[in-house]
Amino acid sequence: MAVGIAVTGAGGRMGREVIAAASERDDCEVALAVNRTPVDPVEGVAVADADDLPRLLADAGHTVDVLVDFSGPDSSVEYVAAAADAGVACVVGTTGFDATQAAAIDDAAGSVPVLRASNFSRGIAALRRAVREAAASLPGYDVEVTETHHDGKVDAPSGTALTLVDDIEAARPGLTERVHGREGDAPRDAGEIGVHARRAGDVAGEHEVLFAGDENVLELTHRAGSRRVFAAGALDAAVWLAGRDAGAYDFTEVLE
Amino acid sequence: MAVGIAVTGAGGRMGREVIAAASERDDCEVALAVNRTPVDPVEGVAVADADDLPRLLADAGHTVDVLVDFSGPDSSVEYVAAAADAGVACVVGTTGFDATQAAAIDDAAGSVPVLRASNFSRGIAALRRAVREAAASLPGYDVEVTETHHDGKVDAPSGTALTLVDDIEAARPGLTERVHGREGDAPRDAGEIGVHARRAGDVAGEHEVLFAGDENVLELTHRAGSRRVFAAGALDAAVWLAGRDAGAYDFTEVLE
Amino acid sequence: MAVGIAVTGAGGRMGREVIAAASERDDCEVALAVNRTPVDPVEGVAVADADDLPRLLADAGHTVDVLVDFSGPDSSVEYVAAAADAGVACVVGTTGFDATQAAAIDDAAGSVPVLRASNFSRGIAALRRAVREAAASLPGYDVEVTETHHDGKVDAPSGTALTLVDDIEAARPGLTERVHGREGDAPRDAGEIGVHARRAGDVAGEHEVLFAGDENVLELTHRAGSRRVFAAGALDAAVWLAGRDAGAYDFTEVLE
Amino acid sequence: MAVGIAVTGAGGRMGREVIAAASERDDCEVALAVNRTPVDPVEGVAVADADDLPRLLADAGHTVDVLVDFSGPDSSVEYVAAAADAGVACVVGTTGFDATQAAAIDDAAGSVPVLRASNFSRGIAALRRAVREAAASLPGYDVEVTETHHDGKVDAPSGTALTLVDDIEAARPGLTERVHGREGDAPRDAGEIGVHARRAGDVAGEHEVLFAGDENVLELTHRAGSRRVFAAGALDAAVWLAGRDAGAYDFTEVLE
Repeated sequence: MAVGIAVTGAGGRMGREVIAAASERDDCEVALAVNRTPVDPVEGVAVADADDLPRLLADAGHTVDVLVDFSGPDSSVEYVAAAADAGVACVVGTTGFDATQAAAIDDAAGSVPVLRASNFSRGIAALRRAVREAAASLPGYDVEVTETHHDGKVDAPSGTALTLVDDIEAARPGLTERVHGREGDAPRDAGEIGVHARRAGDVAGEHEVLFAGDENVLELTHRAGSRRVFAAGALDAAVWLAGRDAGAYDFTEVLE
Repeated sequence: MAVGIAVTGAGGRMGREVIAAASERDDCEVALAVNRTPVDPVEGVAVADADDLPRLLADAGHTVDVLVDFSGPDSSVEYVAAAADAGVACVVGTTGFDATQAAAIDDAAGSVPVLRASNFSRGIAALRRAVREAAASLPGYDVEVTETHHDGKVDAPSGTALTLVDDIEAARPGLTERVHGREGDAPRDAGEIGVHARRAGDVAGEHEVLFAGDENVLELTHRAGSRRVFAAGALDAAVWLAGRDAGAYDFTEVLE
Repeated sequence: MAVGIAVTGAGGRMGREVIAAASERDDCEVALAVNRTPVDPVEGVAVADADDLPRLLADAGHTVDVLVDFSGPDSSVEYVAAAADAGVACVVGTTGFDATQAAAIDDAAGSVPVLRASNFSRGIAALRRAVREAAASLPGYDVEVTETHHDGKVDAPSGTALTLVDDIEAARPGLTERVHGREGDAPRDAGEIGVHARRAGDVAGEHEVLFAGDENVLELTHRAGSRRVFAAGALDAAVWLAGRDAGAYDFTEVLE
Repeated sequence: MAVGIAVTGAGGRMGREVIAAASERDDCEVALAVNRTPVDPVEGVAVADADDLPRLLADAGHTVDVLVDFSGPDSSVEYVAAAADAGVACVVGTTGFDATQAAAIDDAAGSVPVLRASNFSRGIAALRRAVREAAASLPGYDVEVTETHHDGKVDAPSGTALTLVDDIEAARPGLTERVHGREGDAPRDAGEIGVHARRAGDVAGEHEVLFAGDENVLELTHRAGSRRVFAAGALDAAVWLAGRDAGAYDFTEVLE
């Protein structure tokens, strides 16, 4: 039976992609879509007012199994709380949370299954593995992370870039200083990781990790051809998550 | 007859390369080398105290035709003034000048030939032409400039990156806001040019200009294999400059 | 009034994109779609048997202004001949023609307007300009062209890559030998242009021209985010072409 | 005490780099240098006739501990045999061996320590690890390997590219068909690995592995800034190898 999905942030770039992607698969179905501001139907699906989400989830009975959220940090916290109250699992793709917001999302995992990820592509999961391997193999090399996204993206750097930086720091404990842009007199400290956010055109998402030392460089680059791949991954996660025990899950578990 | 060269900043990365490159060619010869702080001989050439430069140029009689300078902004202003007093032409590869310093260098062109360039490679000259062509052909596309240099480089962004940004602004007059790094809520304005300075390992120099729009991107990238190519270009410029009339010259004239 | 379009090769990747793109704009309309083998409707547009094209064009009266063709070399020759008979302008995006086939397409320009292009993106037009500029500025540099397309693409190298090679040869007359892959003892001749066709995944299209010499390289790369941009460009060309005099036109004219 | 080195292929690009690199370190010393054809001294080291190698090794007594060979396949077999006879360890960086030649090199490991590698850089070792990780994480993705080297390199593809292809095949057993260049009708088979050899300018060495599928790509790229890094790695290997038991060793053991 198809997994019932509630899409929050339905009017945004990713929300639209999720609804479009769901319409092409049999293992899930959009039962509900909401957005903070009024929007026209997306791919034939009516989009309700986000304020009604708690009531709509209650009314939906058992037709909503998983909430798939690509909204903004504030909204996401509110939507996930509503889902937790209604006993609905959550796939959270929103990025840009501060520590308090992130903790609120994590709390929901006490009562429902929650899978939060900065990225839902197999390719990014492979990039992370490759980056961890390289970081461990290249002691002393300088590391710089560069990401490129469409000019409408608000948070910088991207959630995926921050995940990569976390990975690098775990593999290279001495790298403690994140530098976002350099201007003027800016000699490099040995403990820096440079993190560069490029915003341009309608680029779906590119992440590059540069390792440099000893007259050679290693560049590990992932490039998403479209946001559709992320939407497909989020739905894979939703189908995988439906019916699981409460708790926090990781996207890499979906891939295995 | 070989052109006589005075190398200033002789102990730095580029100064050393200039002396090494000169030793392999017949059309020029290092007659004098100075450095601000004491350094050992470079490729067999004794390096004098920079404070003695005025006296050394005077004593050198006609054996110094051109000063080739890769030092730092303050030193460069002082060295070029000394050269102008001695009637010696100047090739200036130092970058990172403020407006006052740059004006001082330009003033010297009133009495001697001066060629100031942020870069001395044919490839960079070709990149600049390609960038100007692309900027004019892609109205409405977002532009981001990314440069990568060794971790010892002090000024950011590189002089070459700034030259590229000037070129882009000339071709796309609406782009007026230079953004050096993005962090936090950083939506892109239409008038931005992103300029990103990466510092890593011993990278000799890489410059990339990204144009993005309409679901496609154009990336124009120059990569220097070593600093030797810049040293060779600076010496080409010196040989070309020797004996010319006072005035300001451009490296593209050397290439033609 | 909307320009009437006949789409040939309607069931292929590009044909589908053209129909989808036309459905989102007001300045043109798909009046007719045909395919060699039977296919289901595309975006709600019925696809007729290609054998019926001559009759359908005749029956269509004045509702078809321009034929937009992304089929295969043999089919394209046949479709364009039918369009020429019916007085219908032609935008031809098919690639992989041999000389005889190409001549047949060009002949049609004696009776109707014909615009044939290996690529319909503004970015590729900008890449071509940048490549010509760089080729002229870098005498003696080696040149290698690398293109990447989805694994279903039949002809290799891509039509766009061949156009770039033509551009390079025009700017650098000594380069006369096209090398497609190297294996075994393969020292490089000075007159070679390497042309490398990568086929992988669902890459929409990437073209890179590498210039290398004097310890530095220049890499000029275009990357299409999706085939939609090509479909949009082909429709721009169709709208521009409608009502013009018979003759051969170039896509760069559309851009100006 | 410094390890005594015999350099074979001393007049070639890599041989020269090895001699230069050895002159700057204390842990090894060039005791002997030979070349097939007469060459001038390299960095002050006299280069003997390669035909004399057996006699020279015998005469050298205990001053030669390790032979470091970057010559050509035929010569390498001969030099390594001579070293084995003289009880001298061998670091072999020559590539382009056929199966018979490779077996001859491996045989020498029965009597002396032999370390054969297609590449002596830590960065390439890290690339290999990253590639294996990615290949295992991306089932079903197409893989294409592209390498770029200076225009004087004879064998294609590079030994390092072949090593990477071996790694990929081990991780993805279905990939059995190596394709070197595509031209004409060349649809891709699912079992292909594309291997592309670019030759251009004086590029020291670049290797890129492209994984593509599901509308996203992963590109893992290593770029050597100069051949010096390979020479340094070969000498690291020589110092590490001196005094070990007979047998075949791998460069990754040196790195650990």
